Amino acid sequence: MTPRDVRMRGFSERADVADAQAWVDGLPRPRQVVRVALASARGRVLAEDLVSPVNVPPFARAAMDGWAVRGADTFGAGESDPVSLALVGAALPGHPFPGAVGAGQAVRIMTGAPLPQGADAVLPAEQGEERAGHVLVREPVAPRRHVGEVGEDVRAGTIVLPAGRLLRPQDLGLAASVGAAELSLRAAPSVSLLITGDELVAAGTRPDAARAQIVDSNSPMLAALVERDGGRVAETRRVADGEASMRAALVGARGDIVLVSGGSSVGLEDHAPQLLATLGTLVFHGLALRPASPTGMGLLGERPVFLLPGNPVSCLCAYDLFAGRAVRARAGLPPEPPYLVRTLPLARKIVSVLGRVDYVRVRIVDAHVEPLMSRGASILSSTTEADGYVLVPKDLEGWPEGALVDVFLY
Amino acid sequence: MTPRDVRMRGFSERADVADAQAWVDGLPRPRQVVRVALASARGRVLAEDLVSPVNVPPFARAAMDGWAVRGADTFGAGESDPVSLALVGAALPGHPFPGAVGAGQAVRIMTGAPLPQGADAVLPAEQGEERAGHVLVREPVAPRRHVGEVGEDVRAGTIVLPAGRLLRPQDLGLAASVGAAELSLRAAPSVSLLITGDELVAAGTRPDAARAQIVDSNSPMLAALVERDGGRVAETRRVADGEASMRAALVGARGDIVLVSGGSSVGLEDHAPQLLATLGTLVFHGLALRPASPTGMGLLGERPVFLLPGNPVSCLCAYDLFAGRAVRARAGLPPEPPYLVRTLPLARKIVSVLGRVDYVRVRIVDAHVEPLMSRGASILSSTTEADGYVLVPKDLEGWPEGALVDVFLY
Repeated sequence: MTPRDVRMRGFSERADVADAQAWVDGLPRPRQVVRVALASARGRVLAEDLVSPVNVPPFARAAMDGWAVRGADTFGAGESDPVSLALVGAALPGHPFPGAVGAGQAVRIMTGAPLPQGADAVLPAEQGEERAGHVLVREPVAPRRHVGEVGEDVRAGTIVLPAGRLLRPQDLGLAASVGAAELSLRAAPSVSLLITGDELVAAGTRPDAARAQIVDSNSPMLAALVERDGGRVAETRRVADGEASMRAALVGARGDIVLVSGGSSVGLEDHAPQLLATLGTLVFHGLALRPASPTGMGLLGERPVFLLPGNPVSCLCAYDLFAGRAVRARAGLPPEPPYLVRTLPLARKIVSVLGRVDYVRVRIVDAHVEPLMSRGASILSSTTEADGYVLVPKDLEGWPEGALVDVFLY
Repeated sequence: MTPRDVRMRGFSERADVADAQAWVDGLPRPRQVVRVALASARGRVLAEDLVSPVNVPPFARAAMDGWAVRGADTFGAGESDPVSLALVGAALPGHPFPGAVGAGQAVRIMTGAPLPQGADAVLPAEQGEERAGHVLVREPVAPRRHVGEVGEDVRAGTIVLPAGRLLRPQDLGLAASVGAAELSLRAAPSVSLLITGDELVAAGTRPDAARAQIVDSNSPMLAALVERDGGRVAETRRVADGEASMRAALVGARGDIVLVSGGSSVGLEDHAPQLLATLGTLVFHGLALRPASPTGMGLLGERPVFLLPGNPVSCLCAYDLFAGRAVRARAGLPPEPPYLVRTLPLARKIVSVLGRVDYVRVRIVDAHVEPLMSRGASILSSTTEADGYVLVPKDLEGWPEGALVDVFLY
């Protein structure tokens, strides 16, 4: 095959970005559930409703410092005509008063302490005074006043956190307060990374210029993206060029989702698309998208397989727009990439081609959006210089200077 | 001491939230550096500039599929008057052409392959054709065209990632591409959690109502907050009520930063403020802030100590506004809590008190902000029901319905 033949095999038709995203979003999402200790649950997704087996608080408690009393005993008390109650003990948080409060009695109580039996109200400290073993009540208190009731925070049997909840620090506090030690979480989808390209040496290696080596920068980037999106990398395998190695790698891949980096186009050594079509189904190959048009996707058995361009910028783009959606959905997260979106004016016009989505890396300078058009898609350093990207829709030829655009901030 | 005495010890003066934050922001930030493998560096902060020791790519490479040629050999070529070059070999990525391209010669080349010696341009596939061991050039190509030069992506000796950078997935890709296996990161500040309250049982325990038990919900919440903010929990210690235990816990605390939960107010069992004043410096105690007014902070030797209210809502508020600033700053992160801020109209008025900052939990309903005023500050479930909070500045008495407010989204 000559370069000319290769070119002739170019994509005859390019699929719509939206169609490919819809296909990804329609993939089945098997819900595997794992039990995870509270301490490791932050940022993960609850798989089942968390129902409280207990009331919080499990006992009535003082909501103020003062004295536990029978409210009725204080009726009629006044500044000039105090009611005197016998002080019979004290209740502190964790140290309940062991007896009961009888008629005409009071127990000194601190906020949070269990309300002793017999008492039905807390007389706040400023409404009374202790003197010689008695409490002089200067202002009455109604029954149930200043008492936190059983189940005031959480009632037994209620759902305290619903399935699908992305767990925040305070959610873990609440889960602990109802007695949970572990939670049922959505299992992190496992992802196989198959990295092609005989010119690549493993990440962590210093490249040898004399041997024309390039370091595999896609696997550390993809691993971090997968982890960010709630997945875990099951394996990172570097696959030698050639159809046999790619076939073996695809057939032997272990993850719930398979990402192939490189060899996704229509070139001489691009075996993955044809192999996926033979071994499974190649649903999309070639997208109306720049960069990352040589992206493919399909199914191998029930596993989604994403063929990502080896070019690092395109790889990032194809991951965020397609493969990442699958990872996030299986992890129980929203499909969109977790980028903050800001609407800002363009500092310079952006020119695009009708019928194609453009993923344009940009910088934010003085609250204006500056496209970084000058550097090629193979230039990884351009994505680290970028603050984010804008997507030019397929039905636009770009935007003029000053147009308000949505920026996805990395 | 009676409840009345306790009340008498109330804060005589309450410090400004802004003053306390300024104190926190002015704390020294010792920069400890750790070497961390690339695979664990996502979301952490680079401690030193990363300088590339290599050029990326380390060799000139083809930017298109076609033939490596001497540009001058193609001058004058045309559709009707092609120039013929002898095809002498092929170059693929990872499989360079071992020889040199002489005058009148061409080597078939794929994108990314090293440009062979002697060649100075790539003739794109569509500008020529292979026939009988020759390449017919139908359109000329200028020297250096379609060649990715040495160091085009990264030039040796340049800073590819600056100190202070919060590392994104593509940054790890870039670091790998310049040969890094590990990075110098800001060490995660270690934090001691000292949890007071004899009524508390450890998180992970099912509370026994008969024994008036409450589960410690602050330590899982604080641990998750510290982790979120780039710190690590060195120890979680539950401290029995009583001055001696608190003294021992403070003196023996191991972390760079010490957080005390509970016992921070002016009550009978609130020993921490006095102890901090005796053993070190109590800089602020009592803030013009609701909730979380019984917050304290100071220094024990060089260690910042934060006295957080035991009340879970106040604890979250005091962490985010004060303690978290210290954790984040030491981790190299921005001081503000990592909440997305949105400006939205109020669905109902908020009433506040002049001279005091109010931390109001809110929900977002139909793009309007609904204050959750109805539930007390001791109600942890109210923070999990909330979507975020607004801060009413001390110089306002609140806002009317419809006012635009900044919401910090949890």
